[in-house]
Amino acid sequence: MPKYGFLGLGIMGTGMAANLVRAGFEVTVWNRSPEKTAPLVALGARVAATPKEVVEGSEITFAILSDPSAAEAVFFGPNGVLTGLSDGKGYVDMSTVDAGTSRRIAAAVAAKGGRFVEAPVSGTKKPAEDGTLVILAAGDRSLFDEAQPAFGKMGKKTMYLGETGGGAHMKLIINMIMGGMLTLLCEGIVLGEKTGLKPVDLLEALDAGALANPMFKGKGGMILAENYATSFPLKHMQKDLRLAVQLGDEAGQPLYGVAAANETFKRARGQGLGEEDLCAVYKTIKG
Amino acid sequence: MPKYGFLGLGIMGTGMAANLVRAGFEVTVWNRSPEKTAPLVALGARVAATPKEVVEGSEITFAILSDPSAAEAVFFGPNGVLTGLSDGKGYVDMSTVDAGTSRRIAAAVAAKGGRFVEAPVSGTKKPAEDGTLVILAAGDRSLFDEAQPAFGKMGKKTMYLGETGGGAHMKLIINMIMGGMLTLLCEGIVLGEKTGLKPVDLLEALDAGALANPMFKGKGGMILAENYATSFPLKHMQKDLRLAVQLGDEAGQPLYGVAAANETFKRARGQGLGEEDLCAVYKTIKG
Amino acid sequence: MPKYGFLGLGIMGTGMAANLVRAGFEVTVWNRSPEKTAPLVALGARVAATPKEVVEGSEITFAILSDPSAAEAVFFGPNGVLTGLSDGKGYVDMSTVDAGTSRRIAAAVAAKGGRFVEAPVSGTKKPAEDGTLVILAAGDRSLFDEAQPAFGKMGKKTMYLGETGGGAHMKLIINMIMGGMLTLLCEGIVLGEKTGLKPVDLLEALDAGALANPMFKGKGGMILAENYATSFPLKHMQKDLRLAVQLGDEAGQPLYGVAAANETFKRARGQGLGEEDLCAVYKTIKG
Amino acid sequence: MPKYGFLGLGIMGTGMAANLVRAGFEVTVWNRSPEKTAPLVALGARVAATPKEVVEGSEITFAILSDPSAAEAVFFGPNGVLTGLSDGKGYVDMSTVDAGTSRRIAAAVAAKGGRFVEAPVSGTKKPAEDGTLVILAAGDRSLFDEAQPAFGKMGKKTMYLGETGGGAHMKLIINMIMGGMLTLLCEGIVLGEKTGLKPVDLLEALDAGALANPMFKGKGGMILAENYATSFPLKHMQKDLRLAVQLGDEAGQPLYGVAAANETFKRARGQGLGEEDLCAVYKTIKG
Repeated sequence: MPKYGFLGLGIMGTGMAANLVRAGFEVTVWNRSPEKTAPLVALGARVAATPKEVVEGSEITFAILSDPSAAEAVFFGPNGVLTGLSDGKGYVDMSTVDAGTSRRIAAAVAAKGGRFVEAPVSGTKKPAEDGTLVILAAGDRSLFDEAQPAFGKMGKKTMYLGETGGGAHMKLIINMIMGGMLTLLCEGIVLGEKTGLKPVDLLEALDAGALANPMFKGKGGMILAENYATSFPLKHMQKDLRLAVQLGDEAGQPLYGVAAANETFKRARGQGLGEEDLCAVYKTIKG
Repeated sequence: MPKYGFLGLGIMGTGMAANLVRAGFEVTVWNRSPEKTAPLVALGARVAATPKEVVEGSEITFAILSDPSAAEAVFFGPNGVLTGLSDGKGYVDMSTVDAGTSRRIAAAVAAKGGRFVEAPVSGTKKPAEDGTLVILAAGDRSLFDEAQPAFGKMGKKTMYLGETGGGAHMKLIINMIMGGMLTLLCEGIVLGEKTGLKPVDLLEALDAGALANPMFKGKGGMILAENYATSFPLKHMQKDLRLAVQLGDEAGQPLYGVAAANETFKRARGQGLGEEDLCAVYKTIKG
Repeated sequence: MPKYGFLGLGIMGTGMAANLVRAGFEVTVWNRSPEKTAPLVALGARVAATPKEVVEGSEITFAILSDPSAAEAVFFGPNGVLTGLSDGKGYVDMSTVDAGTSRRIAAAVAAKGGRFVEAPVSGTKKPAEDGTLVILAAGDRSLFDEAQPAFGKMGKKTMYLGETGGGAHMKLIINMIMGGMLTLLCEGIVLGEKTGLKPVDLLEALDAGALANPMFKGKGGMILAENYATSFPLKHMQKDLRLAVQLGDEAGQPLYGVAAANETFKRARGQGLGEEDLCAVYKTIKG
Repeated sequence: MPKYGFLGLGIMGTGMAANLVRAGFEVTVWNRSPEKTAPLVALGARVAATPKEVVEGSEITFAILSDPSAAEAVFFGPNGVLTGLSDGKGYVDMSTVDAGTSRRIAAAVAAKGGRFVEAPVSGTKKPAEDGTLVILAAGDRSLFDEAQPAFGKMGKKTMYLGETGGGAHMKLIINMIMGGMLTLLCEGIVLGEKTGLKPVDLLEALDAGALANPMFKGKGGMILAENYATSFPLKHMQKDLRLAVQLGDEAGQPLYGVAAANETFKRARGQGLGEEDLCAVYKTIKG
């Protein structure tokens, strides 16, 4: 039975770490605010005082931090992950970061003789708790294989996407498609409203046909209820659209649809909707 | 047991009429090319020589023609539907036409004392055969209610969308969302390819998450197989995008995402891909 | 000295007809509201009671009406141009109309043995008065040549653009470029404002460089002065952008820049700015 | 008579420095490849071996380097500008760089007690030789005022745009408008070609009206001649469009027109046209 470490007990990490503990693995956790460790301890997890300590006591350490700067701070900072790494140890960063951040961490892990996998996830709080995330992994293949028992408890599907950076790119592409689809949905709802159709009928018709998808159902329902409670902040989606446009730039690939969605989300952010849920873009499109 | 008429035995109509006959209804069919009536006769349908004859012998006549001009020809032409209509008779046009065509037909039906429902469908050949279409109906409410037994055999879901024109608008909005989603999918596939990801992995990741939908699965699979066999011609999708942009124009509603998709489909059509399946837009986006 | 007719004494026509009279030509005028003929009579023009009468008494009749429906009414209506046409007579329609309208009129002129030139103009009230319009003519070459003495008094430049329809297309393309340029100017002004630059500085820098053009200077100055007094209604520019997108559609030519401008002007129109000058699109872009 | 230094004798710098020498100023020049100094020496300039030496011997040093990394290398590198700066000395960087680069240089100049002005220019080789550039200056006001005699010989117009960064932003906004205008011109030319108009007629009509501008005339003429000889590389325009979209992102300002142009230039770059003149985007739009 391998010893696992887990860094970051936010909305996502709490559920994910809990699934590892419940599955019977020996898990040592750490969080910047130590009080968040209590529910895990109640389930049977150990607690360490620093990321370094977690890494030293674990064969594989998983981490899910809120953004690239948090991911870099926990890794490169004082008593950070880097200081605890040694030959053969595994580090799996499940944060959503850009490919550049992943590659800097990967290089530092390799320099200490460790192994690195980036593994951003598709899914939010509920799938994290239910162990039904989609795990988009890339990097060291041997570590990927060894981490399968853990991945299997956190996600319903785990993909191996080649060299470090592949997971970040995949996540970005999925999110850019999501942002574009949401603007299309809102354009459709508003066009319907202005030509005499009820939004609820459009959602029902969509849900009955070939375009039916959980995002339309979920976000469409929120829009109908005028509920913009944040599960994915609009400003984060706009950031992903911006990064996707830039990735297209590097690749010499035009992305007219994504670029149009980016401008619409920029308008929404400029209107002060950045902290609301991404479906608040509906208000911008309605104008 | 009501007597039904059915006009138009193309790819869609053949399956739909067959479902009515198999359900035990008394159905009289007509098709411009009479040889297409044979399979229906084999199932037990009667054949009439003209649309007029069908309408005269039926309480409710259903029609599904290939485009607005065919719909108008069968309705207004010599021995057409109009010539057979009289007080109380029902005419249900399931063709995909613009709201203007629908309204012209509706007015002519009313002038003869008849009742009219427009009922375009969402779904293609397979759902037509399986009786799992989504029926987007609008117009005369009493006729809509009376036609329920027939709708129930042709579709898995039937919606009532208010005044004549509502069905056409709903179909158009669904199609414009589809066209936009397909360009986003292709932009994602191509961006992935140019940054080292396999298209099959992107499709798999999409299919496991909140954006999973039958269209991505179906069209994505065709793109992977480089199979552009036409089930929905690209030029028809471009026409729908054009009409949606125009509808937004009438409504004073900007549709930046749809407009970008429209230009991309125009490029595809300009490249000679109009007769291929709409997923051939992938070739245009790949450039 | 040829005898000229002139139909339509609005903002444009008054100045244009006056330039013909002042040049010493014998000119017979007509206007729907007869009181508008007074200034021309004061200069020496004759007045006729109907378009028919004008055409019968003139070798070449010029017309500039407000829109396609006015152009068709004056031509096809009771006592209209068509009723006065006979062998060899010339009709020059300088209204801004779509190519279809032009072709319908051209066909009717030809059927009566007459000759037709469409000749929309680039320029507004001031150039009309100063005789410095740009005349975009197309159609019958012999009539074009014979009308040179008149064109030379109304415009500073006259172009022959081939078959009927060429003038309409040229005007449309120039206007679509104008609409696109104006959105770019506004995007630049607003981006400058939000990053600390003064609009007046941007206009000054533009006016000193390779992009300097009278439209930027004129419309830019109006925007700075928050003066949206209508010389070219925003809704007409949006109509031209829509027609240009449709012309691209017919030609299978994507126009991503024009399509984006069209959506922005649609938003402006949807916000109730349609009757203001086209530079009011600035308010929409500022958001 | 102030002593001037001049760094960078490329296409632009050679003409600009020559104008200073011809005006009778005492000018010390430096260039990475020393052979480029010969024409200046022939006119009467002195030569120094390093940027440091130039700065030490001059009251105000002007520089125009090819890009941000060259600008930073000449400034921060061994025997660079920074090493020669001392109390009160002036440094005027006329390179086109982003606001961030300008601010880093400005901070380093200030730390040595020097004064800094950024002053990118609008105009290419010919205006540089003719002394008719537009100089977009920002930064230290006293240095700006003192440099007037020199600016007056290099440009026909010099603007003061506030704090460091203002010049870079102004240049970027002008270039983004240029890139957008060029895509509109090409869309117009191609739409005309596909509907029967000659490109030369469109250019002539544009040049006679309110949109007439030197860029349309110059680039339009090149397109007609199928001459894509590079005066402004397409890839640099695409970079400016990308930076403008990003600046809009920081400012929360949507720029739909610019974003569409950016995607079109990306496509052009992806097609291998990056090293050709920016007007090669015509080939991409023609498709």
